[in-house]
Amino acid sequence: MIEQRFGRVIREQRAQKGWSQERLAEAAHLNRSYLGEIERGEVAASLVTVAKLAEALRLSLSVLFSHCERD
Amino acid sequence: MIEQRFGRVIREQRAQKGWSQERLAEAAHLNRSYLGEIERGEVAASLVTVAKLAEALRLSLSVLFSHCERD
Repeated sequence: MIEQRFGRVIREQRAQKGWSQERLAEAAHLNRSYLGEIERGEVAASLVTVAKLAEALRLSLSVLFSHCERD
Repeated sequence: MIEQRFGRVIREQRAQKGWSQERLAEAAHLNRSYLGEIERGEVAASLVTVAKLAEALRLSLSVLFSHCERD
C-alpha cells in the first residue's frame, strides 16, 4: 500500500537529517500527531501535504517517490 | 500549486492515450466527476487516488511527478 511505503520513506528521510517529528512537522507546517499517522501509514496524505513534506525535506516529488518505488 | 500542475499532467497523459475522462475514471476506479475536479486542479487528490491514476496510466509515481516538475 502506497501509504505505508510513503510513511516509511518520510521516516527514513527525516532520520537521515537527524530530525525529530516535531522539527519536520514544524518545517512542513503540519500537526505533529498527523505526521506520526502519516509515518505509520495510517492515513493517506493529500497531494498538498505530500508537497509540503517534500519541500521541508528539500526533495523533489519525483525523487521522493523514486524512494517509494525502490522497495 | 501542486493540484493544478498534477491535474494538467493527468489531462495531458490521458489525452496522449486518446482516452476520455470516463475511460480513465473507470480504469482508475474513480468517479468521473471527481476526476474532472482533479484535472481542473479544484481538489487535492490523496496518495491513494494518485497511485490509482498512475497505475491506470501505466506510469510510475516518480515519472508522473517528474512531468509535474517539468513545467
